[in-house]
Amino acid sequence: MQQGWRERIEAIFPQMVRWRRDFHQYPELSFQEERTAKIVADWLKQCGLQVRTGVGGNGVVAVLEGGSTGPTIALRADMDALPIYDEKSCAYRSQVPGVMHACGHDAHTATLMGVASLLAEKRKEIAGRVVFIFQHAEEQIPGGAAAMIADGALDGVDAIYGVHLWTPLPRGVVGLREGPLMAAADSFKLEVVGKGGHGGLPHEAVDAVAIASHVVVNLQTIIGRQVDPLKSGVISVGRIEGGRAFNVIAERCELEGTVRSFDPQLRNRLYERIEEVATQTCRMFGADCRLEYGWGYPAVVNDPMETQRLAQVARMVLGDEQVWEVPEIMAAEDFAYYLQKKPGAFCLVGAGNQEKGFSHPHHHPLFDLDEEAMKASAEVLIESALAYLHANRNPLLSKS
Amino acid sequence: MQQGWRERIEAIFPQMVRWRRDFHQYPELSFQEERTAKIVADWLKQCGLQVRTGVGGNGVVAVLEGGSTGPTIALRADMDALPIYDEKSCAYRSQVPGVMHACGHDAHTATLMGVASLLAEKRKEIAGRVVFIFQHAEEQIPGGAAAMIADGALDGVDAIYGVHLWTPLPRGVVGLREGPLMAAADSFKLEVVGKGGHGGLPHEAVDAVAIASHVVVNLQTIIGRQVDPLKSGVISVGRIEGGRAFNVIAERCELEGTVRSFDPQLRNRLYERIEEVATQTCRMFGADCRLEYGWGYPAVVNDPMETQRLAQVARMVLGDEQVWEVPEIMAAEDFAYYLQKKPGAFCLVGAGNQEKGFSHPHHHPLFDLDEEAMKASAEVLIESALAYLHANRNPLLSKS
Amino acid sequence: MQQGWRERIEAIFPQMVRWRRDFHQYPELSFQEERTAKIVADWLKQCGLQVRTGVGGNGVVAVLEGGSTGPTIALRADMDALPIYDEKSCAYRSQVPGVMHACGHDAHTATLMGVASLLAEKRKEIAGRVVFIFQHAEEQIPGGAAAMIADGALDGVDAIYGVHLWTPLPRGVVGLREGPLMAAADSFKLEVVGKGGHGGLPHEAVDAVAIASHVVVNLQTIIGRQVDPLKSGVISVGRIEGGRAFNVIAERCELEGTVRSFDPQLRNRLYERIEEVATQTCRMFGADCRLEYGWGYPAVVNDPMETQRLAQVARMVLGDEQVWEVPEIMAAEDFAYYLQKKPGAFCLVGAGNQEKGFSHPHHHPLFDLDEEAMKASAEVLIESALAYLHANRNPLLSKS
Amino acid sequence: MQQGWRERIEAIFPQMVRWRRDFHQYPELSFQEERTAKIVADWLKQCGLQVRTGVGGNGVVAVLEGGSTGPTIALRADMDALPIYDEKSCAYRSQVPGVMHACGHDAHTATLMGVASLLAEKRKEIAGRVVFIFQHAEEQIPGGAAAMIADGALDGVDAIYGVHLWTPLPRGVVGLREGPLMAAADSFKLEVVGKGGHGGLPHEAVDAVAIASHVVVNLQTIIGRQVDPLKSGVISVGRIEGGRAFNVIAERCELEGTVRSFDPQLRNRLYERIEEVATQTCRMFGADCRLEYGWGYPAVVNDPMETQRLAQVARMVLGDEQVWEVPEIMAAEDFAYYLQKKPGAFCLVGAGNQEKGFSHPHHHPLFDLDEEAMKASAEVLIESALAYLHANRNPLLSKS
Repeated sequence: MQQGWRERIEAIFPQMVRWRRDFHQYPELSFQEERTAKIVADWLKQCGLQVRTGVGGNGVVAVLEGGSTGPTIALRADMDALPIYDEKSCAYRSQVPGVMHACGHDAHTATLMGVASLLAEKRKEIAGRVVFIFQHAEEQIPGGAAAMIADGALDGVDAIYGVHLWTPLPRGVVGLREGPLMAAADSFKLEVVGKGGHGGLPHEAVDAVAIASHVVVNLQTIIGRQVDPLKSGVISVGRIEGGRAFNVIAERCELEGTVRSFDPQLRNRLYERIEEVATQTCRMFGADCRLEYGWGYPAVVNDPMETQRLAQVARMVLGDEQVWEVPEIMAAEDFAYYLQKKPGAFCLVGAGNQEKGFSHPHHHPLFDLDEEAMKASAEVLIESALAYLHANRNPLLSKS
Repeated sequence: MQQGWRERIEAIFPQMVRWRRDFHQYPELSFQEERTAKIVADWLKQCGLQVRTGVGGNGVVAVLEGGSTGPTIALRADMDALPIYDEKSCAYRSQVPGVMHACGHDAHTATLMGVASLLAEKRKEIAGRVVFIFQHAEEQIPGGAAAMIADGALDGVDAIYGVHLWTPLPRGVVGLREGPLMAAADSFKLEVVGKGGHGGLPHEAVDAVAIASHVVVNLQTIIGRQVDPLKSGVISVGRIEGGRAFNVIAERCELEGTVRSFDPQLRNRLYERIEEVATQTCRMFGADCRLEYGWGYPAVVNDPMETQRLAQVARMVLGDEQVWEVPEIMAAEDFAYYLQKKPGAFCLVGAGNQEKGFSHPHHHPLFDLDEEAMKASAEVLIESALAYLHANRNPLLSKS
Repeated sequence: MQQGWRERIEAIFPQMVRWRRDFHQYPELSFQEERTAKIVADWLKQCGLQVRTGVGGNGVVAVLEGGSTGPTIALRADMDALPIYDEKSCAYRSQVPGVMHACGHDAHTATLMGVASLLAEKRKEIAGRVVFIFQHAEEQIPGGAAAMIADGALDGVDAIYGVHLWTPLPRGVVGLREGPLMAAADSFKLEVVGKGGHGGLPHEAVDAVAIASHVVVNLQTIIGRQVDPLKSGVISVGRIEGGRAFNVIAERCELEGTVRSFDPQLRNRLYERIEEVATQTCRMFGADCRLEYGWGYPAVVNDPMETQRLAQVARMVLGDEQVWEVPEIMAAEDFAYYLQKKPGAFCLVGAGNQEKGFSHPHHHPLFDLDEEAMKASAEVLIESALAYLHANRNPLLSKS
Repeated sequence: MQQGWRERIEAIFPQMVRWRRDFHQYPELSFQEERTAKIVADWLKQCGLQVRTGVGGNGVVAVLEGGSTGPTIALRADMDALPIYDEKSCAYRSQVPGVMHACGHDAHTATLMGVASLLAEKRKEIAGRVVFIFQHAEEQIPGGAAAMIADGALDGVDAIYGVHLWTPLPRGVVGLREGPLMAAADSFKLEVVGKGGHGGLPHEAVDAVAIASHVVVNLQTIIGRQVDPLKSGVISVGRIEGGRAFNVIAERCELEGTVRSFDPQLRNRLYERIEEVATQTCRMFGADCRLEYGWGYPAVVNDPMETQRLAQVARMVLGDEQVWEVPEIMAAEDFAYYLQKKPGAFCLVGAGNQEKGFSHPHHHPLFDLDEEAMKASAEVLIESALAYLHANRNPLLSKS
């Protein structure tokens, strides 16, 4: 059957490229994916699937009922673009100023549309159900995943797979790891409110710049002394801004930062430590501390068994050398929420290609990917879904 | 003779008020004092003095040759206004949007014009010369004083006096001190140039915000450990700005600060220490350090003997209780340059008046002063100048 | 055959206990293991092995030539005790005041003596060679391993296994992991040399205590900002001491610390960063920096294939549930040096037993272990050695 | 009369030297001055004064009633020695191992004994009373002054003078200043109590060394940001000690420091700020903070009028060039307590002499002073006392 899928993927590939380039030219920001969602929904209906739109926002969920009963596997793609000005000069560059598919979600959506078509054609041979989740708003907290789940996207689903095309990996390589794959990414905003004053009279002021600087230094001691060295934790203050004049002591200084972790306990501990360090440092020097903590996506934690299944499938269809165990990635993904509810796995499919110039990192204004990678992605998704259904074909095991 | 001057001052006071209010309505920024200088020069010529304009910029120098020979005493006023929006609602508020006499230089100029008139009327009785220095650009580094000196303003001058009307002191009080009265005020601008990067991957970046924060903290240790506790030194970072996004490690972070001191050796030491701390802190963590050090005005250091003379005169004309020894002031004044060249004294004449509402600090958008203070200022200037000429009347003592 | 070994181990176990308790009563510090080495060597000779003593110090190496040719596998035990006062009250407590087998090396040695006996009895059935390495001085840098290697201990060896009995794991559990298992542990000693002085005159002194404190704070920023969050790095200053009187600024302040890591590149980077931070912090405030960096043992990095072999054997003989993948351990072991030269694996064998009270951590004055664990350890060592010889029985694969 | 005193002083000088050298050979630590006090009391009785011993401890107070009524002036000397090993080799070096008159109190006592003799001889000519205060325990907090005052030493006294012989000043120079002359010197001891632990597992410990280091750094920010730059404040941590082993995270770290100031409000503020910074820094990182704050002597604040009187007398008897205005001194003196109760002045009398080798600082093991300085000291004390009595001879002004 394997050969069959590859040929069919080859056949639909030009269509996937057209879709992808269309989305690329008309990118939509998170929570504004109306055009994209309509194109997706129209196509899925045309494929004969049961389509539900407006799921948790602009999300689209389509159900493929197989020819016989069995478990339910979900496959997910995301649809939104980024507020980045497209600096490419190719024919399919973004037509929307300041909006760009700089992360490959266009290709994710196009790939899953192709996958849905192909599986729909073979509906009768499928024992179980496949749920296609086209998610909106992955790029912007609170994301679309949680809302789609709340709106029933995972109802009846037994397991879920997802792919991110990834230019740092060479085309065709599948990268995965059991357990944590992508980080929990939280944020904070801290305003130190002191008391402004004459630059020569520090004792009459409460120097917000000096106090904020102490906070930044103290935050590093959290990492150095209060994080298990075997675990990963990061606190980065990306922005600091305080005061206007060189000779006036600043009343206010603002810090904004990001916090990364994989372990949920550490994640909570980092929050508590940041709050304590910020609060006490300010209090110690007489300032008020206004901390807003922004809980972002949790870590993407792959189910070991499903990760092994996906790896096995990938090795089978792409060859052993093409399947890599990758280290954890410090970026976040709201696929994490699906994995909090259901077993599943999220993997990377290499989409970089130095020779063709597809080497810019994700979110770069010159980002582009090797569209050929959509074929490997489609193949992995199809074969994994079928492998799952096959392995869990015994209705007694089905949780649906 | 004393009573005579007071009456004459009373007589010219309405004119001083008119001048002051005119300047107040048409303030001119530092280095742009053309209208003011012209009014001053025209009047001084009218008084029969030898007037030189364009001295070191917009400065005006007028010489009053007394009826007989003797030493030369200089009196100085400053003429420039500030880039502040006048928020007062009185009739004579500034007509120039965004420019305001918020420091009292209008009254300094008007007072010295009156003083020049009165002394000119008594020219014959004066044994020696009086030089009137109407200085431009006190408010903005490098100031007008140094340029006027370079252009000969102090040529032939034996000593110099100056007054700053001062609203923190009650009207009529004269504040002075021997030695340092006002601070040397230097500035610095520091750019920490690291390497930007992903907020979750600090080891691939050089975090300019974290390094700049270490610099700010380390600068405090200079004050705590490397400054003689019996001397005064201040380092204040008034402004910090680095990074744009909470989740991107900043490539650059900029600091701006002010440095105050009274002792010239300490002033140099602070510069050296700041340079060393900034440089090594950056180097230690892998960043480049771009430091611009702005040497401002040196400290205003009053000559002990001239200060005593001025104090004695002030006690005589205003009463003992009206003459206060004031603590050092953390603000700077380019009168300092005159005192580096000639003996002399700079004093404060109280111009505050709570009852009349003249209580805002200098440089405040609602700043105003009690014009009556111009009378005390004029009397102190006239009597001190004459006292100097009298005390040094022996031509052997004259340095001219 | 498996059952056979277990019975034989049971048979020799009482002897192993006697050896262990004898060593326990007469512990010898690192580099002083003469009595222990003699007992070991005498026994091994009695078993008919070729014994070499004084290897790299007090090390003993014995070679068992099998009945037929094949590869060479090495098994290693360590023999030294610690400078700890034994606070136990059992019959076999240390008879040497201030010296104690508080880490289990007595049991390691006793176990390997038993293993050697048993394998020697079956010499004819063995195809290849087994080398028994009884190492001195594991507890004290530079350790005995490097010296024994330099003195030929690994000559002709193809692979090596080792066991550490481990009370934090329950008896009978085998703990292992591929790749890094135990940390590289380096050390540093930093003397900040400033200039002493009167506590009230900081500007005339160079305050070694303040500068050392800055160093400690700055070291944390290395961890927070310059270490890959996916890797493990620790810098701990365990001791600080500076100054004698509360009111005299200290001329000197001494820091001592430990540095842990697993990745060799990170290990070097930590050294470089510590040197730079210490040097520049001292220089910045005018002090001299005297840094001695003590390179300790490198990380114990298990060969993946040998770890899998050992795991497979352990699962076979002890059951699947008894074989755990353990996290990295922050302690160091000079077994690391063997693994830098030869493939091999180091594993933990649980020796804790809450019920019997064997629950104190290693290096604790009340440390003791469940001697029953020696049986599991012996079985794993024997079976792994044989498994290795069997798997590599093809002489073409043998590197000997 | 002036010449008369000088001759009389010359006459008694050899006796003063004998007393001084006797005290020098048999120094007594603070609160143990029994022998010294007995010699003093015996002599004063012999001089016919009313002597009270055991005042507030080992203090001695003697009253000289003049021939006629008038005000009461007190003169004070201190009697205690220091726990220093005398390293001099002269004939009169200390005979008590580890105890030494390394600050000149021996000479203070001898001088005042001479002064008492001389004034007693002229009792009849004196209009008023002279009280001689021989104080114990100046070198050790809480000092003898407060206890002697509580025990009535100042009862009936109108004003008080005191002298400290001072080797940093050349012999014969009198150094004084109005207002603050010597510092308030407080102390603190801070124990940071964290949680000990394995050097590689910082997250399980609370690192007392790291936290104490943050405290030291943060204390500097108090000086840099919260002290009026026109005032003097010092916080010096003289001693830090924490941890025993390089590879074990310390449970405890101890800091000891000194705090200097002149202004009473600043003195309190420094205490509050130190407490807050220490407490919050510890809390922030999870440690307990045990702070003991030791209030030492307050600042020696000279009464302006009495200082001028003393200066005038000194100029008269020693010459204008011999009377210097000295900067504040960062050391403390419990003469401060007398000046909190009564107007008075404390001055320095130069006792250094480079040529003779009297150039070691006070408290140095080689400290010695030029005994000739006792003559200038005696003359200043006698003449000042008489000047005070004369100036306040009108009984209406007497507060006694």
